[in-house]
Amino acid sequence: MKALVFEGPGRAVWRETPDPVVQDATDAVVRVEAVTICGTDLHILKGDVPEVRPGTVLGHEAVGEVVATGSAVRGVRPGDRVLVSCITGCGRCRYCREGAYGQCREGGGWILGHLVDGTQAEFVRVPYADNALHPLPATVDATEAVLLADIFPTAYEVGVLNGRVRPGDTVAVVGAGPVGLAAVATARFFSPSRIVAVDLAPARLDAAKRLGADVTATVADSETLIADLTGGLGADVVIEAVGAPESFELCTRMVRPGGHVANVGVHGRPATLHLEDLWSRNVTIRTGLVDTYSTPTLLRMLIDGRLPAAPMVTHTFELDAMEQAYDVFARAADTGALKVVLGEPRPEGPTAHAAEGS
Amino acid sequence: MKALVFEGPGRAVWRETPDPVVQDATDAVVRVEAVTICGTDLHILKGDVPEVRPGTVLGHEAVGEVVATGSAVRGVRPGDRVLVSCITGCGRCRYCREGAYGQCREGGGWILGHLVDGTQAEFVRVPYADNALHPLPATVDATEAVLLADIFPTAYEVGVLNGRVRPGDTVAVVGAGPVGLAAVATARFFSPSRIVAVDLAPARLDAAKRLGADVTATVADSETLIADLTGGLGADVVIEAVGAPESFELCTRMVRPGGHVANVGVHGRPATLHLEDLWSRNVTIRTGLVDTYSTPTLLRMLIDGRLPAAPMVTHTFELDAMEQAYDVFARAADTGALKVVLGEPRPEGPTAHAAEGS
Amino acid sequence: MKALVFEGPGRAVWRETPDPVVQDATDAVVRVEAVTICGTDLHILKGDVPEVRPGTVLGHEAVGEVVATGSAVRGVRPGDRVLVSCITGCGRCRYCREGAYGQCREGGGWILGHLVDGTQAEFVRVPYADNALHPLPATVDATEAVLLADIFPTAYEVGVLNGRVRPGDTVAVVGAGPVGLAAVATARFFSPSRIVAVDLAPARLDAAKRLGADVTATVADSETLIADLTGGLGADVVIEAVGAPESFELCTRMVRPGGHVANVGVHGRPATLHLEDLWSRNVTIRTGLVDTYSTPTLLRMLIDGRLPAAPMVTHTFELDAMEQAYDVFARAADTGALKVVLGEPRPEGPTAHAAEGS
Amino acid sequence: MKALVFEGPGRAVWRETPDPVVQDATDAVVRVEAVTICGTDLHILKGDVPEVRPGTVLGHEAVGEVVATGSAVRGVRPGDRVLVSCITGCGRCRYCREGAYGQCREGGGWILGHLVDGTQAEFVRVPYADNALHPLPATVDATEAVLLADIFPTAYEVGVLNGRVRPGDTVAVVGAGPVGLAAVATARFFSPSRIVAVDLAPARLDAAKRLGADVTATVADSETLIADLTGGLGADVVIEAVGAPESFELCTRMVRPGGHVANVGVHGRPATLHLEDLWSRNVTIRTGLVDTYSTPTLLRMLIDGRLPAAPMVTHTFELDAMEQAYDVFARAADTGALKVVLGEPRPEGPTAHAAEGS
Repeated sequence: MKALVFEGPGRAVWRETPDPVVQDATDAVVRVEAVTICGTDLHILKGDVPEVRPGTVLGHEAVGEVVATGSAVRGVRPGDRVLVSCITGCGRCRYCREGAYGQCREGGGWILGHLVDGTQAEFVRVPYADNALHPLPATVDATEAVLLADIFPTAYEVGVLNGRVRPGDTVAVVGAGPVGLAAVATARFFSPSRIVAVDLAPARLDAAKRLGADVTATVADSETLIADLTGGLGADVVIEAVGAPESFELCTRMVRPGGHVANVGVHGRPATLHLEDLWSRNVTIRTGLVDTYSTPTLLRMLIDGRLPAAPMVTHTFELDAMEQAYDVFARAADTGALKVVLGEPRPEGPTAHAAEGS
Repeated sequence: MKALVFEGPGRAVWRETPDPVVQDATDAVVRVEAVTICGTDLHILKGDVPEVRPGTVLGHEAVGEVVATGSAVRGVRPGDRVLVSCITGCGRCRYCREGAYGQCREGGGWILGHLVDGTQAEFVRVPYADNALHPLPATVDATEAVLLADIFPTAYEVGVLNGRVRPGDTVAVVGAGPVGLAAVATARFFSPSRIVAVDLAPARLDAAKRLGADVTATVADSETLIADLTGGLGADVVIEAVGAPESFELCTRMVRPGGHVANVGVHGRPATLHLEDLWSRNVTIRTGLVDTYSTPTLLRMLIDGRLPAAPMVTHTFELDAMEQAYDVFARAADTGALKVVLGEPRPEGPTAHAAEGS
Repeated sequence: MKALVFEGPGRAVWRETPDPVVQDATDAVVRVEAVTICGTDLHILKGDVPEVRPGTVLGHEAVGEVVATGSAVRGVRPGDRVLVSCITGCGRCRYCREGAYGQCREGGGWILGHLVDGTQAEFVRVPYADNALHPLPATVDATEAVLLADIFPTAYEVGVLNGRVRPGDTVAVVGAGPVGLAAVATARFFSPSRIVAVDLAPARLDAAKRLGADVTATVADSETLIADLTGGLGADVVIEAVGAPESFELCTRMVRPGGHVANVGVHGRPATLHLEDLWSRNVTIRTGLVDTYSTPTLLRMLIDGRLPAAPMVTHTFELDAMEQAYDVFARAADTGALKVVLGEPRPEGPTAHAAEGS
Repeated sequence: MKALVFEGPGRAVWRETPDPVVQDATDAVVRVEAVTICGTDLHILKGDVPEVRPGTVLGHEAVGEVVATGSAVRGVRPGDRVLVSCITGCGRCRYCREGAYGQCREGGGWILGHLVDGTQAEFVRVPYADNALHPLPATVDATEAVLLADIFPTAYEVGVLNGRVRPGDTVAVVGAGPVGLAAVATARFFSPSRIVAVDLAPARLDAAKRLGADVTATVADSETLIADLTGGLGADVVIEAVGAPESFELCTRMVRPGGHVANVGVHGRPATLHLEDLWSRNVTIRTGLVDTYSTPTLLRMLIDGRLPAAPMVTHTFELDAMEQAYDVFARAADTGALKVVLGEPRPEGPTAHAAEGS
């Protein structure tokens, strides 16, 4: 088959590689219908994630069709259309028993395109298939559904649910890249009074408005704006979706006493925590890797037309245009890319989205 | 009356000052039966808390007898024996409605011995008396009860409840000073499998054992010990009870994925938050000033003999030995002082405690 | 002043009665701008609530202007426009400290138009004014705001919050009278996948659709419909808003294993609880009187245009048409009345609503 | 092998039956070291559980040694000593993903000794072994550990955790049979101020005292006692551990406004729910089958010496005295039996317990 193979820092090639096969009784092999590219993939490509060995197929998000299953797989069978979640879990360790699949101690967690071959390929082997695969009705658009493999559950669980968004709240989302936008969209589920999106780029703030932000602010204006909107008190919930110390520190300045800071961003450096201000303010700070316990709920919301996934997809490509798609996604500031989806050609939907988004 | 008056950094004098009177309809005046000294009082004395103006009577913890009440006070009347809580609240602002009295926006919160005259005196005016005073049966020892004015609810709410201690947990308490010891004692309420007390001073670790710690460790050994006890996973709950960046950072290294860090310490400097390690570990960090919503519960526990307050009191004095008591408390490393209680002479209990403790 | 005075079962008269005055330091007197009639008022009128003594002014919901305050009232002052909540609380008892004002042990709870004179009058004395009065901006329509005195917090707290409505849920609301409709409207805050309204009357089911129900069903069809919609599992949340044993029993049959039944209805007779079916199904059943802890949130939602209160008001009258308004409300099956609001004439809004609603 | 085979209402015989073998990739076969008898087994024997077909081996609780595993079993391997939980789960359905294994929709839940052959045998096949088996250190007494297969997690999850026992609470446990006693013992984990055990039989009330009840009462005295202990308010938590309508109704009368009733009893008939009293009292009623999500925690508590299981075991037998053991357990009123454990002879512990208990 063809797949995007990581060949060391700076190099990933779309080339022939052996077809995956069922290795364990709990495996499934899935033919890929649609995949997307994640910011994490760019980090891997740069060499920032050293545990990814050269030779690994990249990618941890997909929609596809099951083609083979191990003897212990019960939840899906060949022919089933499925969402391939970025997280899989053994289902029996302490963490899996609590739905914290992202923290699986027995070989699950985030492994696809990381510790084992991933989804940016024609076929992918999915370990612990019963926990990683979610049946998908034929009517659901693969281009939208693939966003539920990672970005939507990440934003919803680690940002919105960990942040405890409640009706009537003022919610600030710092960072309006794809995961920040998904946080804006899913924060809406709890009817906050206002969602304030904060970013440097006007185009991203426009996208935030389309996904449900009530107010937008540049980073420079954001603290003053939040103070004005809340009578000086601060936001009830602040979601960090950038992954930089400055951004995290901004979040801790914008939160009200008794409020929540939910960190979704992937960080490479430490931040300064101003405990001399925060110690007495009853603040809760949460971090997290997605666990995907919310994926079934989000799928129901998507199927019921309540999850606005489509506006996130700005570009679509056929699967073998993988290297071109990486280029467009990596130059998002120029190309306006939010999410780039690759897959089998479908004449309608996706192309339309690309037209809208660009 | 006599009271301990703050006269500027480095100077507090036990001297005559006018008797307090009811000023507002919601005030009560209380004759002091017992008071204690808090670490915060030492900070004020050093000049670290600039909003305390010279002329202020210090102290925010007391047991006493109501001698006068304003027209709107309903919960107590003259003659009632009461606990004077360190926190008072208006009872009607957003925070008070949620039991977050420490964050009161309308003149409550921590004001005694801070923004208004405090309890280290023969009499004290207590604003918002209905929320700050808790009736106290005659049978309860004032020396023990006074510890429920601040230190026990602080340790219990901000450490144990915010940290979500659960049956079977491994709990680490970093810092075995009075508030850390109170965290050890109240963490017991939730039957953790093990409480590990961490400190530099062997004498404090001994005290921790007396209050219910199962294991003790020096700071240097603590990380290895926690790893050994938890199969390398980390503690379920880590309670910071020192108030130093190094200590807080140690706490964030000792917590397991999915665990809680509850900060009780009062901090004067920022800490480094290693988000590059923590972002993916589902960690919850909470800060907080005591709200005293748990005071009625703790009083019930004390009355029922389920709260081991007595071992915390190492020294007792008569009220007018205030300056001597400050000296003993300030030199805790030499004197072995944990809590120092001042009050009316009572022949039995307190003296016995002093004997035990020293 | 003029007021609606209860004169014994079957008789209430709009007549002269002495003006109320401030009696306690915590009282306020409010001039009534708008009031509404509650189903409970009809029960009182029938004689079903024997603790209401003849001579009592009825009504427990109002919008008005503060005209006098006792010396301990801090949150409002004469001239302030306020919402008068149906529940007041002492603010210091065990229940008030937890926000359970409806269960106040010290003379609060539901007292207006019940144990003391109520709001269906030109003026009303409000005890514990700081907890019962909520400042109201001039821009808010009194006709809509008055629905936040009782019906909206009741439906939201006792139905939606106690029922734990979550994104993606199937929610059944049994009974589409005013409180059921308010439950439909506020269940929306949590983005359930479907809200199913159940009633006998087609007109009420139409109203449910206008307030946000996705599907409606007659009582006879409701069990089959819920089973069909949920693959035979049952609804995640079922809200009882009728107050009859048959209705409650229907709710317990429609709930899925692990689901919640939230009882909002006022019951006069016992129901049968089929423990032989329910014991093993992990079901949670909650009852409750409104506590009004959510009123500030609901007010914010109304002000922000996120609470659709207006469609609930089908008829408006001037204050002295009180007896006529009772008649229209009592004959709701004929008149199509949902909520009937009385107040000072305002040329615009209210009349428009009446036109829409009828 | 030998096993206790149900041969229809009134008849169960300890006789030869074929050895179980691994049938599915997720199965394990366990050699039985210890088993116990549950009240449910007596119900099956009477014919009250019609889905148990003649020919089924009874029993759903065991300690043993794994002798064979299917190809997909990862958590245990032959030679491991294990606890066999009464509940197993597929690990992938909606309920299993939330830890509600008792409600498994894919063939799990309570199946052992119910829908498939059970544990009262020399060997047992355990489906979904990874979720049903818990590794057990060699040092743990089988006689105590076997109580964690059903009775302790049932009492703890369905009684104590569903009832939300909190420090300082007054907890009433109605019914001091084995499961009620286990509720008394595990309620202690949360340091309630008082546990009141209620039963008809003085011997059971004595046992309750040994397991940690602070106060005991006959059924007739219980309402007055609870009222006296709580100033007329009622108990914070009431746990029903009988399974009779009268008992459940007593529980709903003893609970305070805002309190919790947790039903653990297995009911065969409906109860009367006095909604005319309860509708306004903010009461939460919960039912539930055990899910065994707490089993790992309880095992840790047992290993750490914090779970007093031993006093529950009044009689021990060798495995082939099964029929005699049933007789002793069925005549508990005469024999004083609480839990009866069968297993391989061990000279020490168990015999000692029997001596203590009888």
